[in-house]
Amino acid sequence: MLIDFADPQPWNVVRKRVEGLPLDTVILRYSSEIGVKSRRTRIVYERHLVRNARRLLRREGLSYREIQWVFGRIYIKTQQALEAAQQLRRLFGLSSTSPAQETESNLDAIVDTVVDFAKHALREGESFAIRCTRTGDHSFTSIDVQREAGRSVLDVFKRKVHVDLEEPDVEIEVEVREKRAFVFIGRLPAAGGNPLGVAAPLVALVSGGIDSPVAAWLALRKGSRIYPLYFFVGSHWRKDSTVDAIVDVVRVLNEWALGEIRQLFLIPRDAFLKPILNKAPRPLTCVLCKRFMYRIASELANRLGAQGIVTGDIAGEQASQTIWNLAITTAAALLPIHRPLLGLDKSEVVALARAIGTLEISERVTAPCPATPPRPTTRAQEESIEQAENALPIASIVSKALDRMVRIRLT
Amino acid sequence: MLIDFADPQPWNVVRKRVEGLPLDTVILRYSSEIGVKSRRTRIVYERHLVRNARRLLRREGLSYREIQWVFGRIYIKTQQALEAAQQLRRLFGLSSTSPAQETESNLDAIVDTVVDFAKHALREGESFAIRCTRTGDHSFTSIDVQREAGRSVLDVFKRKVHVDLEEPDVEIEVEVREKRAFVFIGRLPAAGGNPLGVAAPLVALVSGGIDSPVAAWLALRKGSRIYPLYFFVGSHWRKDSTVDAIVDVVRVLNEWALGEIRQLFLIPRDAFLKPILNKAPRPLTCVLCKRFMYRIASELANRLGAQGIVTGDIAGEQASQTIWNLAITTAAALLPIHRPLLGLDKSEVVALARAIGTLEISERVTAPCPATPPRPTTRAQEESIEQAENALPIASIVSKALDRMVRIRLT
Repeated sequence: MLIDFADPQPWNVVRKRVEGLPLDTVILRYSSEIGVKSRRTRIVYERHLVRNARRLLRREGLSYREIQWVFGRIYIKTQQALEAAQQLRRLFGLSSTSPAQETESNLDAIVDTVVDFAKHALREGESFAIRCTRTGDHSFTSIDVQREAGRSVLDVFKRKVHVDLEEPDVEIEVEVREKRAFVFIGRLPAAGGNPLGVAAPLVALVSGGIDSPVAAWLALRKGSRIYPLYFFVGSHWRKDSTVDAIVDVVRVLNEWALGEIRQLFLIPRDAFLKPILNKAPRPLTCVLCKRFMYRIASELANRLGAQGIVTGDIAGEQASQTIWNLAITTAAALLPIHRPLLGLDKSEVVALARAIGTLEISERVTAPCPATPPRPTTRAQEESIEQAENALPIASIVSKALDRMVRIRLT
Repeated sequence: MLIDFADPQPWNVVRKRVEGLPLDTVILRYSSEIGVKSRRTRIVYERHLVRNARRLLRREGLSYREIQWVFGRIYIKTQQALEAAQQLRRLFGLSSTSPAQETESNLDAIVDTVVDFAKHALREGESFAIRCTRTGDHSFTSIDVQREAGRSVLDVFKRKVHVDLEEPDVEIEVEVREKRAFVFIGRLPAAGGNPLGVAAPLVALVSGGIDSPVAAWLALRKGSRIYPLYFFVGSHWRKDSTVDAIVDVVRVLNEWALGEIRQLFLIPRDAFLKPILNKAPRPLTCVLCKRFMYRIASELANRLGAQGIVTGDIAGEQASQTIWNLAITTAAALLPIHRPLLGLDKSEVVALARAIGTLEISERVTAPCPATPPRPTTRAQEESIEQAENALPIASIVSKALDRMVRIRLT
């Protein structure tokens, strides 16, 4: 999978093997994005990661003794390592997490711990492998660890288990780092990306559909905080049943955003849709509507200090999303419109929505926009748009729409 | 994989099993994108597919008797079915292809053909499965086909093969469509998307890096033709060694674009970089450079009738690609800047580049831009950009740059 983080199946299997071990550490591994940064940028990114880890643990009510930030790794000392490792997968900027047990970096201590892991996790007749990585000065090599620990495991099981380096039933890993060593089984894939907060915030247009939450999530993933904005149908938001679903979707996004999405912004579509329906040719409705959305979202972004707008547009998915119409609608925006789903297929976006956790909620939403014309244009012409908009008091519509904005507190 | 089309390994295995069978048809299955379109749009899309299939076959020198366009499928009658099925994977708008053998849609004929396939492809001790789908009126059901053909295969192998519906060594599929039936083994995954030509063309900025060809490919995948534009270093393109690599990259893209990328556009970076280096603060170099690229690309797009610009920007990947700087650079464009890689990680883009076939060429390019300052700004301010650009004759630089444009013919 291009973006691959959500297959909890194998982890459920692994989890059963390690449950009950005296795990005391969560290992956080940085995403590939962080490794390639300059030293200065790395430090900024890693500092964000540490802060975000602290927030997530607090938010989930998980206790911890210490967050240790060392080169290339973050170690979290906690008695709730199993639960914490699962929750911390949601930190952007990580490639994976592992619940682990710390031990001293001498061969005896490591071998003893590996044997404890094996006795707990391995059953007769099964196969195992031991893998070791090491940094620092030690009187032993990684190969020594693998050989010694492997021999001890075979002894303790009286050879009723066997080594399989290709597809072992149980893989015990040892990470030796200077004066310490960590033993663990299993890595929980995380979602990659950059730590939340390293990028400028964006206004995220959410629509009730499947796509827009995925686009918003991709913005979060690259480190941008988001301000979600929904243009509700009708004149009062309480009468638009989609708002409930959007609140639920944004709550799911907030799990990834560490609760930093504090409000949902609501603006009545009526504010611009009514004048459009009154004055403009019907086939142009969607394109004109989108242009107002972009103008209003730009204005909101400017007020909030956001540096752009992220939308769920997929090229050609709907009439208003043809490459022709995207040119026409984008021209009305004062800030960049980011469309991270542009090149994907719907089925791919659906798969991603499932992994993120928003799909089920989005699928509940059935209300299509009541104003969609029977034959919306797929190729609006600049001149006809100009003509249609000349009949509309653009600036006053935009400012009145913003005056009617409602904010729903989420946290 | 989110975008999943390029694992030829299993196919190589399957290919060996079917080689030598009297295959006479290639089945083309539409991508999920096409199935959800309105009837009117579907017809347009499918017509493009048929035309593109014809072009690809001609381009590859593959002979065929007929292209049959029926509901939900395209069948290509050819004696080079195996080779054609592999080449046709590159048609955007397909989910998969299969080389097949046509037979009449009566039970005896189908069973005979399945048995021929089994005798050719299956070996003693192996397992098999037969799957059948059917549309139209027949005196038999899909289940009948599976049962009868299965029984005959078991008989012919004197029970030295066995049925395994979960993980068979050989899976023989039967597609019954009205008066005809097709028997095949294996499906070659295609790249999805929309048929080339259904969307408006875009100017694709290519840089010599890994990312921009992937972004251009995603635009092609959604149906846009592209005009590749490279801003070369120095005053003559022949002295910029990157041009060779870019030509090679565009040739790979052209395999996907059916040869419809006819030229590579080259413009000297010097045209704007020299004035920038002379007049502007060093840290602003990259942002000012990008703004000129977008202005010039917009102008070129307008001349060519392209409806936007596609770039390989990944949020936060380089200093000029922070969400802050994207806002500043995008503001100089006259057309939308599409950034389909915005939310991806570098490692994901690399994987996609490998699947597309551009990675190896892009990795050959080592020359970084000689003008990159030691500390490029990650957060340019509007005012400082305005001030810097006030010292530059923007319009004249843009028009002179376009005057110096060179076109390299590709086909």
